[in-house]
Amino acid sequence: MRAASALWHLACSKCAARYDADAIAQLCSCGAPLLVRYDLERAAQTFTHQALSEREPTLWRYGELLPLRDLSGRISLGETMTPLLPLHRLGRELGLDELFVKDESTLPTGSFKARGAAMGVSRAKELGVRAFAMPTNGNAGAAWAAYAARAGIEANIVMPKNAPAIHRWECERAGARLTLVDGFIGDAGRVVAEEVARGGMYDASTLKEPYRIEGKKTMGFELIEQFDWSVPDVILYPTGGGVGLIGIDKALHELRELGLIGDRMPRFVAVQAEGCAPIVEAWKAHQSSSTPWTNTHTVAFGIAVPKAIGDFIVLDVLYRGEGMAIAVSDGELLEMQRSAASREGLFLCAEGAATLAAARRLREGGWIKSGERVLAINTGSALKAGAVPTRDR
Amino acid sequence: MRAASALWHLACSKCAARYDADAIAQLCSCGAPLLVRYDLERAAQTFTHQALSEREPTLWRYGELLPLRDLSGRISLGETMTPLLPLHRLGRELGLDELFVKDESTLPTGSFKARGAAMGVSRAKELGVRAFAMPTNGNAGAAWAAYAARAGIEANIVMPKNAPAIHRWECERAGARLTLVDGFIGDAGRVVAEEVARGGMYDASTLKEPYRIEGKKTMGFELIEQFDWSVPDVILYPTGGGVGLIGIDKALHELRELGLIGDRMPRFVAVQAEGCAPIVEAWKAHQSSSTPWTNTHTVAFGIAVPKAIGDFIVLDVLYRGEGMAIAVSDGELLEMQRSAASREGLFLCAEGAATLAAARRLREGGWIKSGERVLAINTGSALKAGAVPTRDR
Repeated sequence: MRAASALWHLACSKCAARYDADAIAQLCSCGAPLLVRYDLERAAQTFTHQALSEREPTLWRYGELLPLRDLSGRISLGETMTPLLPLHRLGRELGLDELFVKDESTLPTGSFKARGAAMGVSRAKELGVRAFAMPTNGNAGAAWAAYAARAGIEANIVMPKNAPAIHRWECERAGARLTLVDGFIGDAGRVVAEEVARGGMYDASTLKEPYRIEGKKTMGFELIEQFDWSVPDVILYPTGGGVGLIGIDKALHELRELGLIGDRMPRFVAVQAEGCAPIVEAWKAHQSSSTPWTNTHTVAFGIAVPKAIGDFIVLDVLYRGEGMAIAVSDGELLEMQRSAASREGLFLCAEGAATLAAARRLREGGWIKSGERVLAINTGSALKAGAVPTRDR
Repeated sequence: MRAASALWHLACSKCAARYDADAIAQLCSCGAPLLVRYDLERAAQTFTHQALSEREPTLWRYGELLPLRDLSGRISLGETMTPLLPLHRLGRELGLDELFVKDESTLPTGSFKARGAAMGVSRAKELGVRAFAMPTNGNAGAAWAAYAARAGIEANIVMPKNAPAIHRWECERAGARLTLVDGFIGDAGRVVAEEVARGGMYDASTLKEPYRIEGKKTMGFELIEQFDWSVPDVILYPTGGGVGLIGIDKALHELRELGLIGDRMPRFVAVQAEGCAPIVEAWKAHQSSSTPWTNTHTVAFGIAVPKAIGDFIVLDVLYRGEGMAIAVSDGELLEMQRSAASREGLFLCAEGAATLAAARRLREGGWIKSGERVLAINTGSALKAGAVPTRDR
């Protein structure tokens, strides 16, 4: 039922360098992130519509295109495929007949970060890693701490002190070593870099290890399967580091190369908050990378990333595929959070609600056309304490 | 792929009365709950190991033994099958080699209450219900409010004012009419009864409508499938109203009548908190029903039910199957909550942690034997704000 990984090598996302996939690797010597490459010809022999439909309904069903050599050694907290929900009532209100949400809140630890953590921690364990360090805005650190506990690996999590308190609680409960910093995720990243420089510690920062993206990628496989192997017209993604967007795009390209979908790609929309919108500014100016954002302020803390290490990849995806980037206000996303609950019974996180607020604006402005199939990614649950705005308690 | 419901009639759980399953029904005229009966001979034709394995991985896969006449009209927020997780590390510590948790926290609204709400609201909608009222300790009301929003049905939720604040937030956000009462769930029930007596309102109280239990029942179908059609030795269930325990038992009996499992049943353990343990007291005294508990006090608010309407059914299940009832202290369950997080990366709700605390005690006392396969039900997520003890924030 399961299939062996077609893992081949690691390739630099900027230069031509290749690295052995079975040794611990971080960034390329040129400083850019490494991406996992597979032997797609080999994968094609067993990775078929029919074969997939008969496998267990978890993200592990995509074994050929996952980096884990031995799936039986996977670290799992139960990563069932997340629901794809049609929003009829809200869709009608927004003028979108074909509006869907992929609801990632049903994953372990209540957010899509479980995908990256399940894959990243599983592969780290397989490669013999005993301890890692990472910066986080909260959900990712909580997820990695939980999977590390399950794996018996030491987790060192560095988090802005303004991150929602629930994430501190999760990390501490899972037995992680937690450091709080006065600043943003970039400042947390500097603390991690110092720790890693002292040696003996795996750097699990976003895109500084190549496997988290492979977990996020499974969102793309799942949504295509759930749409019965058709590609939606528009995918809206709440963009902080942007790894999920990069991952979904990578998944679609792999499926295309395997001949499982056609050539048409979705138009990606990178959704940010007006209080932290470096990708949006870069996209407007048609720049290849972003300028660090200053004066960050938004209730959508998960996407408050002033400078993403993978910004150039996100922007490339938008430029290649007629995508776009848009920022919404906290007022808009909070209003949408209310609408989704009262119209559809969905408790979206602020970041997820931002994607629907963006869909509304893009439909009103005509960028999304009547009849188009639109998918918004809800990355987590509003029910995690921190995600519920205090004034609403 | 889907199969038609083999819904037959409603049968009283105490007297011999039968009721039409396609008319709105509440309690039997004798005052006892009604249970749903199916034409099992008809169901047996399509409800097979093989057929099930090919269906969608949600609770709707059990169509023949669900009350919904038309599955296409179901009200769904994405009820994917919940993970069955082996606990190797914690199991070793407790002397339990075969310890599993079924983790219900991954359901919509973060608790197993989604099962009852999905089925109850779907069937209410199918029967033409426009408005319902129900008492709740929090999670059930939140789930029913969410599904009601999705269905476009009016929800009237009555909740103790001491219930966790997150549940108020959920109900209000989902557009339910919320009433707070000074007291426990029984007091909330009295308010609902008054409201229902005024007419025009469906009574969705636990066991006063017959369909919620049919949703909870799917826990039983799932766990048997996930254990590859074998029956565990012991199932520990956090018991407030006890509908989940009744439901799992009902599922196993239906599977047995269909010949899909053998005659052996699990030993059920009804786990309560020392601060509210009416079922435990009744079981110890071998009584057929419980005496209302006074002076209720526990952090496990979800199982703080001083007098359950279905207590006599729960006790009957325990007596029939060599089961038992046990109470654990808040200290024990909070300690187990910590252990599950640090050893396994699992953020169990207080009620779920209580089942593992009970497993520890029963193993130490010899009631659970070495090598037995033990399943604990975790009914929800600790990450829902209210479930995290305030002193740990």
